[in-house]
Amino acid sequence: MKPFLDADFLLQTGTAAKLYHEHAAGLPIIDYHCHLDPQMIANDYQFDNLAEVWLGGDHYKWRAMRANGTPEEYITGNKPPYEKFARWAETMPYAMRNPLYHWTHLELNRIFGIDKILNPSSAREIYDECTALLRTPEFSVRRIMQRMNVETVCTTDDPADSLEHHLAIRDSEFPIRVLPTWRPDKAAAIDNPLDYIAYIERLEEAVGFAILTFDDLIDALQQRHDFFASAGCCISDHGLETFYATPYIDDEVRIIFRRTRAGKKAPAPVEIEKFRSAMLYEGALMDAHAGWVQQFHVGAIRNNNTRMYDRLGPDTGFDAIGDPNFALPMNRFFDRLNSKGMLAKTILYNLNPRDNELLVANAYNFNDGSLPGKMQFGAAWWFLDQMKGMEDQLNALSAEGLLSRFVGMLTDSRSFLSYPRHEYFRRILCNLLGNDVENGLLPASELPFIGQMVENISYYNAKTYFGWE
Amino acid sequence: MKPFLDADFLLQTGTAAKLYHEHAAGLPIIDYHCHLDPQMIANDYQFDNLAEVWLGGDHYKWRAMRANGTPEEYITGNKPPYEKFARWAETMPYAMRNPLYHWTHLELNRIFGIDKILNPSSAREIYDECTALLRTPEFSVRRIMQRMNVETVCTTDDPADSLEHHLAIRDSEFPIRVLPTWRPDKAAAIDNPLDYIAYIERLEEAVGFAILTFDDLIDALQQRHDFFASAGCCISDHGLETFYATPYIDDEVRIIFRRTRAGKKAPAPVEIEKFRSAMLYEGALMDAHAGWVQQFHVGAIRNNNTRMYDRLGPDTGFDAIGDPNFALPMNRFFDRLNSKGMLAKTILYNLNPRDNELLVANAYNFNDGSLPGKMQFGAAWWFLDQMKGMEDQLNALSAEGLLSRFVGMLTDSRSFLSYPRHEYFRRILCNLLGNDVENGLLPASELPFIGQMVENISYYNAKTYFGWE
Amino acid sequence: MKPFLDADFLLQTGTAAKLYHEHAAGLPIIDYHCHLDPQMIANDYQFDNLAEVWLGGDHYKWRAMRANGTPEEYITGNKPPYEKFARWAETMPYAMRNPLYHWTHLELNRIFGIDKILNPSSAREIYDECTALLRTPEFSVRRIMQRMNVETVCTTDDPADSLEHHLAIRDSEFPIRVLPTWRPDKAAAIDNPLDYIAYIERLEEAVGFAILTFDDLIDALQQRHDFFASAGCCISDHGLETFYATPYIDDEVRIIFRRTRAGKKAPAPVEIEKFRSAMLYEGALMDAHAGWVQQFHVGAIRNNNTRMYDRLGPDTGFDAIGDPNFALPMNRFFDRLNSKGMLAKTILYNLNPRDNELLVANAYNFNDGSLPGKMQFGAAWWFLDQMKGMEDQLNALSAEGLLSRFVGMLTDSRSFLSYPRHEYFRRILCNLLGNDVENGLLPASELPFIGQMVENISYYNAKTYFGWE
Repeated sequence: MKPFLDADFLLQTGTAAKLYHEHAAGLPIIDYHCHLDPQMIANDYQFDNLAEVWLGGDHYKWRAMRANGTPEEYITGNKPPYEKFARWAETMPYAMRNPLYHWTHLELNRIFGIDKILNPSSAREIYDECTALLRTPEFSVRRIMQRMNVETVCTTDDPADSLEHHLAIRDSEFPIRVLPTWRPDKAAAIDNPLDYIAYIERLEEAVGFAILTFDDLIDALQQRHDFFASAGCCISDHGLETFYATPYIDDEVRIIFRRTRAGKKAPAPVEIEKFRSAMLYEGALMDAHAGWVQQFHVGAIRNNNTRMYDRLGPDTGFDAIGDPNFALPMNRFFDRLNSKGMLAKTILYNLNPRDNELLVANAYNFNDGSLPGKMQFGAAWWFLDQMKGMEDQLNALSAEGLLSRFVGMLTDSRSFLSYPRHEYFRRILCNLLGNDVENGLLPASELPFIGQMVENISYYNAKTYFGWE
Repeated sequence: MKPFLDADFLLQTGTAAKLYHEHAAGLPIIDYHCHLDPQMIANDYQFDNLAEVWLGGDHYKWRAMRANGTPEEYITGNKPPYEKFARWAETMPYAMRNPLYHWTHLELNRIFGIDKILNPSSAREIYDECTALLRTPEFSVRRIMQRMNVETVCTTDDPADSLEHHLAIRDSEFPIRVLPTWRPDKAAAIDNPLDYIAYIERLEEAVGFAILTFDDLIDALQQRHDFFASAGCCISDHGLETFYATPYIDDEVRIIFRRTRAGKKAPAPVEIEKFRSAMLYEGALMDAHAGWVQQFHVGAIRNNNTRMYDRLGPDTGFDAIGDPNFALPMNRFFDRLNSKGMLAKTILYNLNPRDNELLVANAYNFNDGSLPGKMQFGAAWWFLDQMKGMEDQLNALSAEGLLSRFVGMLTDSRSFLSYPRHEYFRRILCNLLGNDVENGLLPASELPFIGQMVENISYYNAKTYFGWE
Repeated sequence: MKPFLDADFLLQTGTAAKLYHEHAAGLPIIDYHCHLDPQMIANDYQFDNLAEVWLGGDHYKWRAMRANGTPEEYITGNKPPYEKFARWAETMPYAMRNPLYHWTHLELNRIFGIDKILNPSSAREIYDECTALLRTPEFSVRRIMQRMNVETVCTTDDPADSLEHHLAIRDSEFPIRVLPTWRPDKAAAIDNPLDYIAYIERLEEAVGFAILTFDDLIDALQQRHDFFASAGCCISDHGLETFYATPYIDDEVRIIFRRTRAGKKAPAPVEIEKFRSAMLYEGALMDAHAGWVQQFHVGAIRNNNTRMYDRLGPDTGFDAIGDPNFALPMNRFFDRLNSKGMLAKTILYNLNPRDNELLVANAYNFNDGSLPGKMQFGAAWWFLDQMKGMEDQLNALSAEGLLSRFVGMLTDSRSFLSYPRHEYFRRILCNLLGNDVENGLLPASELPFIGQMVENISYYNAKTYFGWE
């Protein structure tokens, strides 16, 4: 019987273990997409206790606790930290086979050196031990990142953001590269006119001029895009329910924006689609001009629980997997850019696992030989960020594309404790490749190349792709 | 080489075997959803021969026989029982790797003690041996159920049904709990006005008053709902092509019903959707008020072969897997109920395996901490009720939710011989958990909890969830 | 560690190996669907070099090379053969885990006797050795086919085609049966009126009369259908984005055709659907009358990259997997035929793996007991023609239907070197069955039947199904 979480965790064969330990384990982490708060890095934030760092914003855990019958007051409510933690510890055994079970124990072990299983009987001891550590200077957020061998981190930021914390980090002595990512979702979210107008006003403040027309809007975004570039940003990101590629003419979009901006008329559904199509395209042009990498996270269905949305707002555990049919609009969108020679390097993340093969096959319609791996099928995301989800992503990418050119893992996390997910990913990758060699599906004579391939996917491909060499 | 169907059938590791034999094998069966005929239980029906019990109503076998080139006269026609059985035995070897191959041999072995393989050369002997047994008192339907260690059975019943057989069973000495389930599909099936009017007339007879308006209809259904509750019913069930959540106003629905009821005008497609949306919602309110569990079977596409439908009617093997996109209407439907605080305990069954992850992720948007496992991803259903289908269901539930809170298996069967499917399910469950422990994916130190988890999923979770403690 | 590509390649157990070596390896190949050029067979074409035969028309390899950063001039451009080949050899290691890695090495080994791994350091030697062989008489296309133990080949041909090369082959001494397949896609492609009119003019030339009305069109197609039948054709094939079963009346379709043919008016989207629905139905009637097998390849989304389409035309690596919902129109289409007693034997190929179970379950709605395996779930196709794709197809077919009645593998290839894919398929099939026996999922006592089943799926089922006995 293989021990839980030992040195060869997830590594089923000798070749897998060798690949991992010799080629993956020691490499730094490039976390090119996450949702960390840059202010906490700028201030080198120190957590007060294990509940704060673990339960403060982690909607994965919240969902599990709700499903386990935990009342909301112990989840997002005002109960004292340890009481909340105790409820989480109670939930833990019931989360066996859920990715949270592995994440939790990896984080306890790799970050805090704990080798106990979290359950109600170990809860107090683990809480106290981790809390004590978190209060030491060695567990400030900067120290945690450094201890985890992080080299680069890209946060997720709104165009209207001042990036003050990023600039502060850059000016500090911090050796880890912390860069902003351009996420203009709100600039396209015309569906809700009141929120949208408020957002446009925020953007006006950021640029210092009035945004009354669609052309003003594009000018404003371009100005912010330039500013982000000056702060080291080289990646955009878009959260999309589906791709938008409804045919439109520019004047239609101008009218839609003007009327909405002026508070005169909420856009009709087809107008929303046209506006979103225009925004997606214009944003992609900016990225192509700037030589950035553009990311698309496709297929979430968000804010499904109105009652809890009204109480807690977005990103609180009431989002899920959508099921749009997007092959046609996706191809149309990329085809239009490609026809103009304006298709930037692109990473596509998929939330519905049924679309894995479709996504990579369609993305590969737009590789153009200009660089290896131009069109990327991004790492398993959110609900798929688990063992089977990762294996499925790697297998679909292998079958329909070139695994060797994959830019690899990212945490997509709001937490400073999520870095062991890179280890988890690397182990799964090495396991698949190692098993293939052991089973005669790949030639053992090519192990030097395979070792290099592990290193590339774990680290070097991202470094090259994003231009951080 | 592992023997076929031996004591460790489907159990690949020692831990899996231990989990199964020590924690699952001995537990009673709660079959909380099936299509047994309550009259046969009330009368303690005795089958005449193996063809009757096996081929009389089993459209799974019919489909296999048709695909194997068997003429219809040997399937649903008038050929003598043994001739039909001989054709089934001929088909059997050709069904290797189809779930029927395992079901058949499990049923032969576990119910009749046969350890032969069914094929043309063993057909006569097996037929005679089983037929002889079926004619003994030990093989009446009640005795079979008792021998299979059944504790509770929930049939599937129409609101207009008198439940006379359920009441008769309740009044008899039968120790197995046999309860009706509320399945109001026909009350919403306005698509075919003539059949619908006939159904409403049946319902009128059941309630004793005229149903001329939508409000009459709701009153009638509520009266029957109350009656079902008085007969021990605590579960509803809905067979849906997709979820219906088209916005409507009550007066629209009133008009749609009145016109259809009066035979004046068939509803247009959008009216059908609105009516179905209203019915789904009103039914869910009744379930919530009564504290019932509501079940939704989503994604079948039925009666696709008109020629055979005209000859044989529904449920004769011409249904299949549909492909609606239902994430949005499903969320809308539950969100509306949840916003009113009227969302009952819910089990969602999925027929298209591509939607497994989607279904559980979206269901979990509505867990509210009020009890563990409120929103359930139901067991693998119909075309998915087979080894890989079950593994996929368990893995999707594990990855996106809490396997530990699963209420487990049911037969969904029309046959009194289907109980070994519970054994089959338990073996597959134990095998997954056992393998995880052996492979270091779950900690061996937690085996006591894992054993309890097996017991819960096999038996105790259902008992608690449905309130049969 | 299992050696790469050895005698037991892909065979994980002794039983699997025994099944393959004793029951599959020696059987001839029936390649009932491919895209070989009949002229090359008629002329017994001799390739000049390895680049020509491998890179001349293989858009799978082109996609991989583009994804690997190879400029187009080395792919479809004018670079010298060896320079192109060297770029392919460079790409090869980066294609590990892609099916191209296995195809390539199987083809090198089984056809040329090469046991080296292709990479930049072996490229020159492999190129020279294979090129030398290709220039010998033993490597003419006819000799390759004979050495690969091919018995029957069906090409893919347009109704307007003269079939002159097929007739020439038939009149020669060539012992391999080479038959045309009726692929009338262009006759339904009314979407692009200019191309469509040009095609109708080609068809007019083939039949020798003017095609001005829909009835003319059907007459012309029927005449060509008869001619194809006289040339030994007994299979049709249709490449469909989705099934078309929009209700129409004949006069509508007549008007749509007449106006388009006359160049007066391009059809509107709903008219295109009606026209396609009519053409699909009329074509199916012809197949049923003639007693042919009809094939449907469903779910590709083609020509997505306009820039490259304008440069290179169709079938150049810019097609992918689509995501239509087709359960309803597919059932409608077959139901209409079945209601008239005009449903021919049918093979359905699926391109989006998410629809595997759906496809086979729905196809099985129309088995009618008239012959075993009437409705077929075709072999894993195009993007799915790889290890996991094949396993998934076999597993879905097993779970929802009768694997034993499967007509098995085909290359669907444009290349004369693709025959090892039959070996690949047979190994995967034997591996699944062998593992099932070893794991106690199938009874070892039935190995004689299982051996026969392997033979049937590898060879005899196709022979019977297509009537080549």
